[in-house]
Amino acid sequence: MARFKDRRSIRKYSRRGIPEGLIEALAGEASRAATMGNMQLYSLVVTEDGPEREALAAAHHHQPMVQEAPAVLTFCADFHRFSRWCEERDAAPGYGNFVSFINAATDTLLFAQAFITLAEECGLGTCILGTTVYNPDKIIEALHLPSLVVPVLTVTLGWPDEAPEQTDRLPVEAILHAGHYHDYTAEDIDRIYAEKEALPESRYFVELNGTENLAQVFTRFRFTRQECLEMSAKMREVLKSQGFWECKLR
Amino acid sequence: MARFKDRRSIRKYSRRGIPEGLIEALAGEASRAATMGNMQLYSLVVTEDGPEREALAAAHHHQPMVQEAPAVLTFCADFHRFSRWCEERDAAPGYGNFVSFINAATDTLLFAQAFITLAEECGLGTCILGTTVYNPDKIIEALHLPSLVVPVLTVTLGWPDEAPEQTDRLPVEAILHAGHYHDYTAEDIDRIYAEKEALPESRYFVELNGTENLAQVFTRFRFTRQECLEMSAKMREVLKSQGFWECKLR
Repeated sequence: MARFKDRRSIRKYSRRGIPEGLIEALAGEASRAATMGNMQLYSLVVTEDGPEREALAAAHHHQPMVQEAPAVLTFCADFHRFSRWCEERDAAPGYGNFVSFINAATDTLLFAQAFITLAEECGLGTCILGTTVYNPDKIIEALHLPSLVVPVLTVTLGWPDEAPEQTDRLPVEAILHAGHYHDYTAEDIDRIYAEKEALPESRYFVELNGTENLAQVFTRFRFTRQECLEMSAKMREVLKSQGFWECKLR
Repeated sequence: MARFKDRRSIRKYSRRGIPEGLIEALAGEASRAATMGNMQLYSLVVTEDGPEREALAAAHHHQPMVQEAPAVLTFCADFHRFSRWCEERDAAPGYGNFVSFINAATDTLLFAQAFITLAEECGLGTCILGTTVYNPDKIIEALHLPSLVVPVLTVTLGWPDEAPEQTDRLPVEAILHAGHYHDYTAEDIDRIYAEKEALPESRYFVELNGTENLAQVFTRFRFTRQECLEMSAKMREVLKSQGFWECKLR
């Protein structure tokens, strides 16, 4: 079993298929993760081929692993199934609201990471696609997601055909706070980001983009305010159109 | 190592403390989980005693494990640290918006489940407190969380002092969809909820609450529409007050 501290994302996969029943077994085991009120507010859509795969590739900006991985997994926050159950039982579901989306997304992401960890223990490789938040509307269309179902994480899955370098992480002191949150001084920031800033690839990206430093690469090119605002507007529209936006009248 | 499929939430803990350095080691290993753009948009606040513990207990409705567990872990979506770095580097951070909250919450929950899995492999027990979404404002106050930091998951941690029965889960077919989402027929709903509805504890709760069936226990008592709407309003207020609500002018 690979140790978790050796994990890395895998973007290239061998042609070997995923054995029949393995994804089901892993999903069953992962469903042992904690879930709000034991409601299991998630669904996992497994796309291996067919027109859905083409549509997903477009939604994910044609990143090659969406076409090449044996399976594309779309983990969806799902209050639809639970609400269908309520409707069938003459119970009035009241989950078309923001906190219900948050609860469902939380359940989904805990389930997703449990699945990823278990899959990697089997030797499978995974890569999470950040593009899920860019085009949730296209994913919803591609996968025929009904009301109260929203994609929150997309993962490509297959047997590794590469052994990439591990990416860096901040020292653990950067993310830990004892008792309560202790804000960061300028010296703290210098110390915890020093290693990242000194990496050859960081220097490469700074030079490539013609910025003064790595932080400017993020704010000016990788994750700009304008792009975040556009995605925020789209995300709200998606939550509205999928029915998760009922407001209390105050 | 316990198998994940045997996992259960642990609410009672022995008096044995958590060895010094273990939480740090687990957090460091868990930080190997995938993270958006390698930004690590999370912080983990570890509360063991002091006034913060009292304040957290109140925020979590005085559930006994918040007082009794050796440690209370509050996993927070955190775009503050990254933004502080940007500010120190003359880069203008643009992360005070909804999609940035979603990205940070996603990072946080993947990190949290990785931490939980690793902790349980060491023999530790965990329980996730659903009350984080009830009183995020009180948690923010208790832990002095600055702008762009929002609690998304609270976990109590310690050595198990109970061996509870496992709770039920839906059959895996209920959560899996091949290719695209396949909506549930009335027959599907009957089949996938049959086992849950037949459990002795389900029948007990139905009788206790005087409802016709289990779904009505959820909609009328456990997770009511009115309560969800109130929590939704509070959650939006919290996202606004913590700075995650900037809208694009359209």
